[in-house]
This record gives sequence, C-alpha cells and structure tokens, in this order.
Amino acid sequence: MTGTARRPGGRTARVRAQILAATVELVARDGIAGFRYEEVADRAGVHKTSVYRNWPDREELVVEALLQYVDDLGTVADTGDLRRDLVDFLMVIAEGLAKPTVRALEQATHAIHESPAVRRAVTRILQERSAALRRRVDLATARCELPPIDYALFGEMISGPVHLIVNRGLRPFTRADAERIVDVVLAGVRATTPDA
Amino acid sequence: MTGTARRPGGRTARVRAQILAATVELVARDGIAGFRYEEVADRAGVHKTSVYRNWPDREELVVEALLQYVDDLGTVADTGDLRRDLVDFLMVIAEGLAKPTVRALEQATHAIHESPAVRRAVTRILQERSAALRRRVDLATARCELPPIDYALFGEMISGPVHLIVNRGLRPFTRADAERIVDVVLAGVRATTPDA
Repeated sequence: MTGTARRPGGRTARVRAQILAATVELVARDGIAGFRYEEVADRAGVHKTSVYRNWPDREELVVEALLQYVDDLGTVADTGDLRRDLVDFLMVIAEGLAKPTVRALEQATHAIHESPAVRRAVTRILQERSAALRRRVDLATARCELPPIDYALFGEMISGPVHLIVNRGLRPFTRADAERIVDVVLAGVRATTPDA
Repeated sequence: MTGTARRPGGRTARVRAQILAATVELVARDGIAGFRYEEVADRAGVHKTSVYRNWPDREELVVEALLQYVDDLGTVADTGDLRRDLVDFLMVIAEGLAKPTVRALEQATHAIHESPAVRRAVTRILQERSAALRRRVDLATARCELPPIDYALFGEMISGPVHLIVNRGLRPFTRADAERIVDVVLAGVRATTPDA
C-alpha cells in the first residue's frame, strides 16, 4: 500500500474524512470551546496523535470540518419555477437544521466573536449559500420574474422564519409554511421595489 | 420588621427578585443544565439555603425566573400607525436579543425537549408575545388596514429575520432593515390574502 496514502480515496484521505466528520458531530454537541481531541480520535477510530499531527490548532480543525459542508449548504436549483426552487431551498434549510453538520455551524456562529478564524469560516459558508441564492435570483431578474433586489435581506427574509420555527421546535415546519413564506415575500418584494 | 416579610417590596420580595435576576444571568451564560445554585446565591448576595428553600426544584427556579420577563417581552404599542408600531416591535426584539434575559430565554428554548416544565414556560412567554402582536393586528384588521391573517406565521415572518441577523452577528440590525421587513411582509400579506 506504499504510495497510496496521499491518493484521494486512499487511507489518509479516509482518516482525515473520519476525523472531520467526528469533529462536526462533537462541535454540534459540545460547542467549539467544549469538544475534546481525545473524543474526536475515539469516534474517528484513530490515535489521538493523528488528530494533533494534522491539526495542531483546534480552530483550524473546526474551520476545515465546517468548510467541507459548503457544497451541501449552498445549493439552489433552477427548474425554471422560482417559487418551487425557493420552497425547496427552505425545505433543505429546515431539514439541515436537524443535522449535526448544520447544528455545528449554528454553534459556531455563537463563537464568532471569540475566534477570527471561525468567524471567517462561518462568513465564507454563509457567503457560499448566499451566492447560490443570488445566482438563482439573478436568473429570475433576467427573466423579468423579479425586480432587482437586496440579495442579503431577501435571503434573511425567507430563511429567518425557517430558523425561528425549527429552532423553537414548538411546531413542525411544513411545506405549507415554506410556500406561504415564499409567496408573501415574493409578492411583497414585487409590490415594494421600484422598477418592478 | 416583623410582618413585613411577605409585603410586596419587603425584604423577602427583594431577596426573591435578586435570586431570580441572578438565575436569569447564569442561565444565559451556562444554560439550564449548567448553572449552579451556589453561584446564584453568591450573585444574589444571599445564603445558598435561601435558594434551595424557596426553589428545591431547579426547573421551577428557571421557569419562575423566565416568567418575570413576560411583560418586558410581550408589548406592541398602538400609536395608530401600524408600520411604525411593528418596526418598533422589531427594534425591541433586536435590542432584547443582546440582553441576558432574552439570551436566557433563547438558551431555554434549546432545552425544551428535555424539560416539560421549561417547555411550558417558554411556550407561555412566546404565547404572551404572540398575543400582544395579535391584539395589535386585530386592531389593524378592524380598521381595514390589514386582511385577516395567520397571526403565528405573520409574527414568525417579521421576527425571524431579526433573530437570524442578530444571532449571526455578521452585521448590525438597523431600523432600515426593520422598515424593509415590515414593508415587504405587509405588502405581501395584502397582495396574497383573500378578502384583502
């Protein structure tokens, strides 16, 4: 097996992926300040020194663990039906909020004031997601389905209620909720934006 | 001073208020599972037994501490200007999210699955707030400024983005944000609700 260690899919890559996955789970459970390298190693089925050797800095470990999920978090489909694509986007967010990955990201956002590195990672992940939404909104604007809008606030307006409902956990977030949110915000944006 | 102990504003009332205030601060910092009776007593300037005697059950202590703030959290003014009252409501929420009281409530919402008592307290506080919003919306409906709407989702649609922006902390939440959110949601609700 000599020489295969650095090949993608090889042993090193697999070990790294296991360590990063374990990190995400533990950050989700214990927070960035609370998770322990020993437990990461236990969960990943590796020796503690493998974790320390690869990531001597715990912030770098957290940042890399979070960044692997950029792709999962930053997709908005283009089926040609804006309403449907946005409703699907909200359903993905709602389902994601129940996953360790995204809970880890949420935990991380509570720590952004303490750690510049984590702040940069969280900012980058949120920017990727917001860039994906922006690309989809640009298509809609080019197709004259939507006036030019403030992307950031638009994203916050449709996803904010999803976060609130899921995080409170007092009632389930349904597709009907997602549809109503998208309908109200789209209609409101069209009614209030100049040059609509 | 005999006989004054149970008078509102008397020594007992003051001690209780100090204990409840200390509890809120510590729940905000350490969570419901993490805060310690000893530290509550230290902060309140009382002996630990005063805390144990009055609240042998820690959930009851948390619940009572949170419920004192029902009034702070559940007010929506009626100046006759719906847009302004809703914008003010969002600014109060945004400012509140920086206070220990409300951070304690947010912490508590993370624990609602573990504790039925805390779940009831959080539910009640949110219901009080939502009842205040409902009273204001009812006035607007009676004045034909707004069609009949789903109060719960309306509240989530205007306050969800505030929570998201403030909790992420990547940019400040401004009055211009609050105005844009209220304008879009009001216009959207008017455009999409039957019998508007």
